[in-house]
Amino acid sequence: MKYISLLGATGSIGTQTLELIREHPEQFQLAALTAGKNIELVRKIISEFQPQLVSVQTKEDCEALRGEFSSGIKFVYGEEGLVEAAVFGQADIVLNAVIGSVGLFPTLQAIEAGKKIAIANKETLVTAGHLVMAAARKKNVDILPVDSEHSAIFQCLQGEEMKDLSRLLITASGGSFRDLTREELEFVTLEQALNHPNWSMGSKITIDSATMMNKGLEVIEAHWLFDLPYDKIDVILHRESIIHSLVEFHDSSVIAQLGTPDMRVPIQYALTYPERLPLQSAKRLNLVEIGELHFEKMDMDRYRCLYLAYEAGRRGGTMPTVLNAANEAAVNAFLEQKIPFIRIEELIEKALERHHVIDNPDLSAIREVDGETRRYVHTLL
Amino acid sequence: MKYISLLGATGSIGTQTLELIREHPEQFQLAALTAGKNIELVRKIISEFQPQLVSVQTKEDCEALRGEFSSGIKFVYGEEGLVEAAVFGQADIVLNAVIGSVGLFPTLQAIEAGKKIAIANKETLVTAGHLVMAAARKKNVDILPVDSEHSAIFQCLQGEEMKDLSRLLITASGGSFRDLTREELEFVTLEQALNHPNWSMGSKITIDSATMMNKGLEVIEAHWLFDLPYDKIDVILHRESIIHSLVEFHDSSVIAQLGTPDMRVPIQYALTYPERLPLQSAKRLNLVEIGELHFEKMDMDRYRCLYLAYEAGRRGGTMPTVLNAANEAAVNAFLEQKIPFIRIEELIEKALERHHVIDNPDLSAIREVDGETRRYVHTLL
Repeated sequence: MKYISLLGATGSIGTQTLELIREHPEQFQLAALTAGKNIELVRKIISEFQPQLVSVQTKEDCEALRGEFSSGIKFVYGEEGLVEAAVFGQADIVLNAVIGSVGLFPTLQAIEAGKKIAIANKETLVTAGHLVMAAARKKNVDILPVDSEHSAIFQCLQGEEMKDLSRLLITASGGSFRDLTREELEFVTLEQALNHPNWSMGSKITIDSATMMNKGLEVIEAHWLFDLPYDKIDVILHRESIIHSLVEFHDSSVIAQLGTPDMRVPIQYALTYPERLPLQSAKRLNLVEIGELHFEKMDMDRYRCLYLAYEAGRRGGTMPTVLNAANEAAVNAFLEQKIPFIRIEELIEKALERHHVIDNPDLSAIREVDGETRRYVHTLL
Repeated sequence: MKYISLLGATGSIGTQTLELIREHPEQFQLAALTAGKNIELVRKIISEFQPQLVSVQTKEDCEALRGEFSSGIKFVYGEEGLVEAAVFGQADIVLNAVIGSVGLFPTLQAIEAGKKIAIANKETLVTAGHLVMAAARKKNVDILPVDSEHSAIFQCLQGEEMKDLSRLLITASGGSFRDLTREELEFVTLEQALNHPNWSMGSKITIDSATMMNKGLEVIEAHWLFDLPYDKIDVILHRESIIHSLVEFHDSSVIAQLGTPDMRVPIQYALTYPERLPLQSAKRLNLVEIGELHFEKMDMDRYRCLYLAYEAGRRGGTMPTVLNAANEAAVNAFLEQKIPFIRIEELIEKALERHHVIDNPDLSAIREVDGETRRYVHTLL
């Protein structure tokens, strides 16, 4: 039995993780969960999965739940509650599916507590990959990717040696606006941006896919997870999202991982690694039915955010922290319909331009830069 | 340094193996070679690679070479010479690239001598897979695939467990006549049949690709190499020969191996396994340049030979021996322009129909059935 602490239980990755726990009651048990404000869903999850620890965002929700469930469940809240769930004694593995760099501190605490980490929260690695990976190495803790692309790469690397790797090829569907020119991006709506062609995901990542910042964050994430320089990480446009990513070795052999788009596959792989567990309910890949797979060059002019991410990643230090914080602030502003879509990349670029980079930042420097960047972006709205 | 005994040095796989030895003089050395009648090429190979043992087909050629090269090279000939090369003391690995079931006995002898086997000679596994695999298990000897499809599967299975496998997907280019109907096959010429769209290979395998028997032999080979029932081995048409094969696991995740068609990649992998060695001269895969990959259903009515191979494989015993021997005889007859293309499958089907299968045949039963089948096919010409 594997005991799971699920950070971000009510989001897209969270609810799909719960489906897996439901499908494999002999293998998985929900030990702890955290959620934001979707208390109605939290109530249902508690009733079905009977976790021992529940953390929500506000004190009010926490107290309300405490009154409703009189059994042995512990209720906590806020940032402290998030950390309490991350280090929860009974958990073997922490699945971090919170959104944004708020996931960083609980991740570091979970590593410190010796927990295996399944990471769906890419902002954590983008903003402070050097701290997370160093802590994981020190504590000899696995950081297991949940993103479909990184899970693909991780699966392709099984049984291989990193010294033989010549490059990673991360695939990108192109997001909601892949068939629009830059000029046409001026007039897109929030509703259009939220309509991803292949994946059903949360709103932040769906917008990140439309700007291609999602792929930029993934490039930086891959840099940290697989300890590779940026010139060994390429991105190609692959509309069908069937090949989830590829790795090329120095003998020219390429290994790829494929599948019908279904986030439960990489989530489950992270939870069961190094084992594979059957997933009966997943739709089998049918290449004959799909018929064709397409590949196109990734245009760095068209997708300015991807260019900015490579630049920030290559510069290193606090640059990726600024990239991420500015992106989070700008995407929030777009989701609140305060700015048009095309402004997202402008705000990020402005934040990057004015930043004086700090090399090898510690956690407090990262938090400070993160906060300061968000405040700066707000002044531009 | 790895010492290689190369059976079939002057063929397509043989000469590509020599290219690899030339490219990696620090890693590989040619210890022994066998060849047929291309003595001019044998002379060049001896001068360049200085093997210690050389076996050719005829006594005359053997004696002629012995007169020319006075150094410490041992010259032998015929079936005995082939076996001597297969068990040659200094060799670490035997690369069996001979054509046809004549490769069986030397393979068994090499296994008996404890040699690692790199197998490009698929007829050996088709005709007597149960004997080869049992001998390899007993002697704890690796049988390493050289066929691009089986190498692909083997690479995809690294770091995985066979119990998690749900099926293999072998890709087929479709061969020279993939765009013709059965009716149009009546009028095809030898020259057209020898013109493979993707791979430059020997004439036997090129004809086998056109009839799709090559894929049938590969299905049976996969059955033995990976110890899988036939209902877990599927074939799909993939025109570009970029995805060399795929494996599907029970969590629905699919791993594939890809590359520009280049037999040196799987040959080298077999020679260096479990390591990978750089192969600078190989053309890197460029999916953007390729643009599209296509997949179609494999039509068992159109490709009768594939149907017959599945049937023979499922029936087992001496049935695959008959399939292979009849195919070798029929392809030879077609190469000698004694029969039209479409007659190949008819002759094979006739041979299968009249055969009374022997279960668990030993080597002598296999040899007898093999010889008898060839004689029968000759009576039909």
